[in-house]
Amino acid sequence: MVRDKVRQAAELLRELDIPLWIVQFARETYDHPEPVQQLLVGTTVTWLSAFIITADGATIAIVGTGDVANIEKVGAYTRVFGYVQDIGPKLREVLSELGPERIAVSYSLNDESADNITHGAYSLLLRSLEGTPFGERIVSAEAVLGALRARKLPQEVGRVREAVALTEELFGRIEEMLSPGVTERDVADFVHDFLAQRGVSTAWEASLDPIVNFGPGSPFGHAAPGETQLEPGMLIHVDLGIKRNGYCSDLQRMWYLLPEGQDAPPPEVQRAFDTVLGSVRAGMETMRIGIEGWRVDEAARRLIVDAGYEEPQFALGHQLGQTTHDGGALLGPRWPRYGDRPIGKLEAGNIFTVEYGLTTSAGPIGLEEDVVVTESGPEYLSHPQTELTCLRR
Amino acid sequence: MVRDKVRQAAELLRELDIPLWIVQFARETYDHPEPVQQLLVGTTVTWLSAFIITADGATIAIVGTGDVANIEKVGAYTRVFGYVQDIGPKLREVLSELGPERIAVSYSLNDESADNITHGAYSLLLRSLEGTPFGERIVSAEAVLGALRARKLPQEVGRVREAVALTEELFGRIEEMLSPGVTERDVADFVHDFLAQRGVSTAWEASLDPIVNFGPGSPFGHAAPGETQLEPGMLIHVDLGIKRNGYCSDLQRMWYLLPEGQDAPPPEVQRAFDTVLGSVRAGMETMRIGIEGWRVDEAARRLIVDAGYEEPQFALGHQLGQTTHDGGALLGPRWPRYGDRPIGKLEAGNIFTVEYGLTTSAGPIGLEEDVVVTESGPEYLSHPQTELTCLRR
Repeated sequence: MVRDKVRQAAELLRELDIPLWIVQFARETYDHPEPVQQLLVGTTVTWLSAFIITADGATIAIVGTGDVANIEKVGAYTRVFGYVQDIGPKLREVLSELGPERIAVSYSLNDESADNITHGAYSLLLRSLEGTPFGERIVSAEAVLGALRARKLPQEVGRVREAVALTEELFGRIEEMLSPGVTERDVADFVHDFLAQRGVSTAWEASLDPIVNFGPGSPFGHAAPGETQLEPGMLIHVDLGIKRNGYCSDLQRMWYLLPEGQDAPPPEVQRAFDTVLGSVRAGMETMRIGIEGWRVDEAARRLIVDAGYEEPQFALGHQLGQTTHDGGALLGPRWPRYGDRPIGKLEAGNIFTVEYGLTTSAGPIGLEEDVVVTESGPEYLSHPQTELTCLRR
Repeated sequence: MVRDKVRQAAELLRELDIPLWIVQFARETYDHPEPVQQLLVGTTVTWLSAFIITADGATIAIVGTGDVANIEKVGAYTRVFGYVQDIGPKLREVLSELGPERIAVSYSLNDESADNITHGAYSLLLRSLEGTPFGERIVSAEAVLGALRARKLPQEVGRVREAVALTEELFGRIEEMLSPGVTERDVADFVHDFLAQRGVSTAWEASLDPIVNFGPGSPFGHAAPGETQLEPGMLIHVDLGIKRNGYCSDLQRMWYLLPEGQDAPPPEVQRAFDTVLGSVRAGMETMRIGIEGWRVDEAARRLIVDAGYEEPQFALGHQLGQTTHDGGALLGPRWPRYGDRPIGKLEAGNIFTVEYGLTTSAGPIGLEEDVVVTESGPEYLSHPQTELTCLRR
């Protein structure tokens, strides 16, 4: 996959008219992993190293001599140079040989998944290029890295689809255990055991994955599952992502535990569920190649506000790939915290979550599906939840 | 431990006369972990967040509203503010209230473990501080973060000691399996199984930990174990680190598999072993509080060169803690690749590796011990290897 993405990177450089890209300039990348390394490097390095891809398809690594054997073994970069004392001379020699008019470097103000160089390493890069014309030719690699993450190859879409399928199997198992007395933490423990048995990891920090909410007292958002016991009349909300074969799922599912003598949720709860479902669908219906992300969010957001609820404090959706919050365009409002990602345009091969939530007197409502953008419109990778599942236990 | 280190941080700020430190300014820190987060934050955040410690001991977190519940639960920061659209207003308000004359920010050209902010986030920080006097008051937090990592608390030394003890137990088990026909990869697989059973992880990338070298054909340095089978007359070299309870070990051990009819290694091999051992000891003997790191390296390096071997291409030792290559002073030559860390001075509570290597016709020689600096001199945390163990199998 690394080699496929490196090949795609060279194509993108030609498309964006960038002759050369210093993909990664970093050190000790096991302890301090860089966002791009899984995608375009495929292993870790100890000493300050430069990984370079050119629009002509050349791939060059300059690494400490102790890392040479490993980089050659991984094989994604065809020219591998080792250095002992200082990376500067070889870096200047390689750049002088290639003479690029622009040099993309992997930093970004807008997109954290394209923000792949520390401030210290960036300063070291500038220092290494002193006395050459190259320091002034540096531009942000945001566009190429964003597109590279966002335009999933078919095999990448396949891997997300597999992660989603396993997550749905797991949701089925969770449903079986939802009985009075079970705690939020019991559900989280069950999920962790299930994943360990399958040799699969959570998609984000395990103490917050899954997020499990029983009833109205549970904090909505990124909070750890607690000791709350399930009781009739409670909504059950689970936000769960897994990482399988390097790619993530991210889904939310809902249930309602019926009290004795009730055969439907309270109207207020049903109305909130229907509003969230309608909102997510309204977002889905606007998704097409070329539309800006904020317009998709707005279609969904308007429906929530028009129904009389408070405006959501979050975006409708983010991209999904090697990380749960992957790079590129965002389905969110044009707020400063989202940088310029909401004006990014949807492209074929983008995988998005679509998710919204509301609070009710029986607990939080939240739905989240995973969707791939295709030439013929959005296509669900998940089997969307369309009804509030009522449990009688 | 996070609370103890946060308290130590406030003490260090007073010592170094820095009124305020923006410890971390980052986003999506599960997918893109920052070097400082395990030490001083204790959890992950999704949205761009600021964690602030002052010399007065105030601890302030400004995080996206969805992260507030989790940060409050972790409890290391007493004032937690949530924001929805833009971190800027609350950050400016907090800084205006405190009015610091200098603001430390966690970036470093010299020390990757103190280089804790991406170039994009640093640019966003400057942008957030436009129109205030604070942007110009930024200084590198290298000194405080380096000292905070390097001056281990007694409980941190205890954890490294425990990791070393388990590693030594594991070396004993490895010795039992060293028979003709075993492959390098068999040893690595055995180590991974052992660690999985104990619920402990490798200290660096598992494909390179342990490094296992059988005989002269095996690449020395950071390379994955291969299919080479053990044969009589080969040196066996294993470089192994584990991470237990958040703290690491890093040790190298050596054996020689005697051929039939031999009862000692060839003189050339024995001489190389003795040289490496003497070199590591010569370094150890110079270690004391206040000495600059490069002087320790030089004492060891000189012995290798004086014995007629090629000068080592690596440093004698690095600090060891939550990561195998921890922050602060380095026992290494004053080469550009090591920045100014070799002129750092040894302090009480620093934990160093001392390690050197040479190549022989029977394979690589490498020894590595873990050592803590105390008021009364260096103290081994490991039981140092003093003889080349000869195996007859």
